[in-house]
Amino acid sequence: MSTEEKIADPEAAKPAEVPLPKKEAPPPPSGPPDTANLLTVDVALRGLLFASTLIAVLVMVTSKQTEEVAVLGIPFPVPAEAKFNNSPAFTYFVVALSVACLYSIITALASISVVLKPVYSASFLLFFVLWDVVMLGLVASATGTAGGVAYIGLKGNSHANWGKVCHVYDKFCRHLAASIAVSLLAAFALILLIILSIFSLHKKIPQ
Amino acid sequence: MSTEEKIADPEAAKPAEVPLPKKEAPPPPSGPPDTANLLTVDVALRGLLFASTLIAVLVMVTSKQTEEVAVLGIPFPVPAEAKFNNSPAFTYFVVALSVACLYSIITALASISVVLKPVYSASFLLFFVLWDVVMLGLVASATGTAGGVAYIGLKGNSHANWGKVCHVYDKFCRHLAASIAVSLLAAFALILLIILSIFSLHKKIPQ
Repeated sequence: MSTEEKIADPEAAKPAEVPLPKKEAPPPPSGPPDTANLLTVDVALRGLLFASTLIAVLVMVTSKQTEEVAVLGIPFPVPAEAKFNNSPAFTYFVVALSVACLYSIITALASISVVLKPVYSASFLLFFVLWDVVMLGLVASATGTAGGVAYIGLKGNSHANWGKVCHVYDKFCRHLAASIAVSLLAAFALILLIILSIFSLHKKIPQ
Repeated sequence: MSTEEKIADPEAAKPAEVPLPKKEAPPPPSGPPDTANLLTVDVALRGLLFASTLIAVLVMVTSKQTEEVAVLGIPFPVPAEAKFNNSPAFTYFVVALSVACLYSIITALASISVVLKPVYSASFLLFFVLWDVVMLGLVASATGTAGGVAYIGLKGNSHANWGKVCHVYDKFCRHLAASIAVSLLAAFALILLIILSIFSLHKKIPQ
C-alpha cells in the first residue's frame, strides 16, 4: 500500500507535502449491501425466535385444567388439577424457553444495533453464534423432555403401568402439544440463525 | 513487501534479469501449523463423539432386566421384562444416537483425509458445521426425551398416578442413567466441534 515512503531515489523522497494523486480510497471492509441483507434476515429470525419462545411459554403456563376424577377409596369424584408444574419436565421446559426468550430479546436488540452501525459485525456474529449453539442445545433438549413426557400422557405405557391422562385433561394436553410444536419452531429458527451466521462468517473470507 | 520493483531510480530499473536477492518467498496462504492443529483437535473431538455415541447406544441396548413382579389378579409373582424398546422415548434415543454415531464415523474419516491433504479444508469445514448443528439438535432432543422419561421411572409422578419403576428394575435404570450421561457428553462434544469449526472459519478472515 504505502510503498511511496520507501522509494530509494533521494529526489523523489523530497516532496513529502505533495498529495499523492493515485492513492485511491480502500474498498469498504465489509460488503455493505450483502452484509446488511444477511443481518436483516438475522434480525427477522431473532424476532421469530422471540415470538415462538414467548408463545410456547405462555401456552404452557396457561394449560391449567381442573377435572372431577374418581379416586380409589372416596365414593364421589373429587376435583383434581392438571398444571405444568406438576411435572419437572414441563418446569424445565418453561425455564429453558424463558431463558431462550430473554436471550432472543437481547440478541435481537444487539443485531438491530449492528444493522444501524455495522462496524463490529464480525465480532458480534462470532459472539452470537457461540451462544446460539448453546441455546439450540437447551431448546432442543427441553422440547425433547416435554415431548417425551407428553407422549406418555397421551398414550400411556402399559409396561410401566403408567395410564394415559389426556382423555381426561383434554385442554391441558392440547396446550402441551401446541407449546411443544411452537418450541420445535424455535429450535428450527436457532438452526437457521447458526447456519446464517456461519455463512456470514464464511463470505468474509474472499474479501 | 516487494517494494524493490517500484523504485523510481532509472539505474536501478535496468538490470531486469538479475535475480532479486531480497525477495522472500510469500507466506503460505493458509497457516499450516495452526490449521493442522485445529484439524487435529477436530479429529479428536469426532473420535470422542464416536466413542460416546457408541457407548450410549450399547449401554441402552444392553439394559434388559427381568424381575418377578406381583400382578393384580394373579396370586403368584410373574417374571416381567424391562427393556429399552418398551418405551418409544428410548427407541428414539437409540435411533438418534445411532445416526450420530454413523455420522461421526463418516466425518472423522473425512476430517482425517483433510488433515492428510489440506486443500479443501474451508469447504469441508463449512459442510461439516452445518450437519454438526443438525446433529446437535438431534442428540440434545434425544437426551432430553430419554432423560424426561427416565426421571419418571426414578421418581414417579403422583399427580398423574405414575409409579416409579427403578426400585424394582435397578440394573435397567443404572444403564439408562449411564447412557443418558454419556449422550450428554456427546452433545458437549458436538457443541465444541461447532465452536471449533466457527473459530477455524473466523481465523481465515485476516489471512
